[in-house]
Amino acid sequence: MLDYAAPMSALVLFSGGQDSAVCLAWALARFDRVETVGFDYGQRHRVELEVRTAFREKLVAAYPRAEGRLGEDHLLDLSVLGAISDTALTRDAEIAMIASGLPNTFVPGRNLLFLTFAAAIAYRRGIKHIVTGVCETDYSGYPDCRDDTIKALQVAINLGMESRLVLETPLMWIDKAATWAMAHDLGGRGLVELIVEDTHSCYLGDRSKRHDWGYGCGTCPACDLRAAGYRRWAEGGPNRAAP
Amino acid sequence: MLDYAAPMSALVLFSGGQDSAVCLAWALARFDRVETVGFDYGQRHRVELEVRTAFREKLVAAYPRAEGRLGEDHLLDLSVLGAISDTALTRDAEIAMIASGLPNTFVPGRNLLFLTFAAAIAYRRGIKHIVTGVCETDYSGYPDCRDDTIKALQVAINLGMESRLVLETPLMWIDKAATWAMAHDLGGRGLVELIVEDTHSCYLGDRSKRHDWGYGCGTCPACDLRAAGYRRWAEGGPNRAAP
Repeated sequence: MLDYAAPMSALVLFSGGQDSAVCLAWALARFDRVETVGFDYGQRHRVELEVRTAFREKLVAAYPRAEGRLGEDHLLDLSVLGAISDTALTRDAEIAMIASGLPNTFVPGRNLLFLTFAAAIAYRRGIKHIVTGVCETDYSGYPDCRDDTIKALQVAINLGMESRLVLETPLMWIDKAATWAMAHDLGGRGLVELIVEDTHSCYLGDRSKRHDWGYGCGTCPACDLRAAGYRRWAEGGPNRAAP
Repeated sequence: MLDYAAPMSALVLFSGGQDSAVCLAWALARFDRVETVGFDYGQRHRVELEVRTAFREKLVAAYPRAEGRLGEDHLLDLSVLGAISDTALTRDAEIAMIASGLPNTFVPGRNLLFLTFAAAIAYRRGIKHIVTGVCETDYSGYPDCRDDTIKALQVAINLGMESRLVLETPLMWIDKAATWAMAHDLGGRGLVELIVEDTHSCYLGDRSKRHDWGYGCGTCPACDLRAAGYRRWAEGGPNRAAP
């Protein structure tokens, strides 16, 4: 029988980007103990890895639900991904679409690996819920972000680890505007400001230009997506709390 | 429509152990081009990684089907596994059973990771078939070696990579005696001798003692399994070609 009083724990895949930051806030609102995991794989926007430390440090002040709940951070060296990738995300090529129609930032099965590594850590830490910010609505075309993939992978992981882990995807069916709205619902203006200031999305790693939606070159696909989502949210709309 | 004349390619997870060596021979009998992949993760029996090079070099002489078919070898650095493992396979602890009943050489989901990395390489290399020596009959208790796990993982990988890769498990339902028989069926005494001489199973990495079944301490669980299988095969039996 389920023990409803038992402490519930979660491990959040936290990259330092906007989506995973909202996922971290989402998890802190639901679970008694929340740990984070990040992956260092020589990505061009290493700055994501730097902002993630700052974000975690400032989180309790900006978001009281984090107090007493935010646990350890795990950072795994996945530089091995560079050995099986020659894409824009890890080298200096242009960000563009390749012939297959997939973004050439595509590392085949990258999220399968991230989630399986996270599951191994969760298993060792006795954590049941794994939270990831993957989403079908950002039009990135990554097949390893799709709901079918995640659900099939949960089955494979639980069979392979003889476990009952749960892969949670709170952003799967919402767009970037709704992600900003979720942040506001969870933590009000304080959390939104922290996400603007201390998360990073820009593919070029640009932290020199400040916009109302955060730092970035303002023209790469990641900046476009983040800016457009912020704009749609800021302009208000049904069920959206504008700033 | 299937093009039956198209060259068929395979990627074999080749550790340098007996099982994966037989899988390599099996693949070379069926596919026009066969590449291999190995994982360096700080395992105590690193000697496996050393013998795999020797085995590949001697394979064409011992096994004519390898000629013109044996392609590239890929060696991936998975030292990151050490960070999520504190088990006997990577440290100096005793080889024994832990409380859960799983061998304490268990790295949660290790084969999920190996197969997903292999799938990423196969995707990049345009290879369709991935061959692994996992098996339900060696009583190791590893849940990530089970048939259900492999089949669920194939679905997750193909959804996540938008691919049609096939995970092949030629040893899934046969025991160690039948694995020796398979080697003999494929390549006769020459291949059996190469497997005896240039593959490695012993957990202690012992290459000083030579037995009729190969090198090893002769007393660890891996040696026990290998020796008992060889003995049962050598003593003959239904459908078994003894040496």
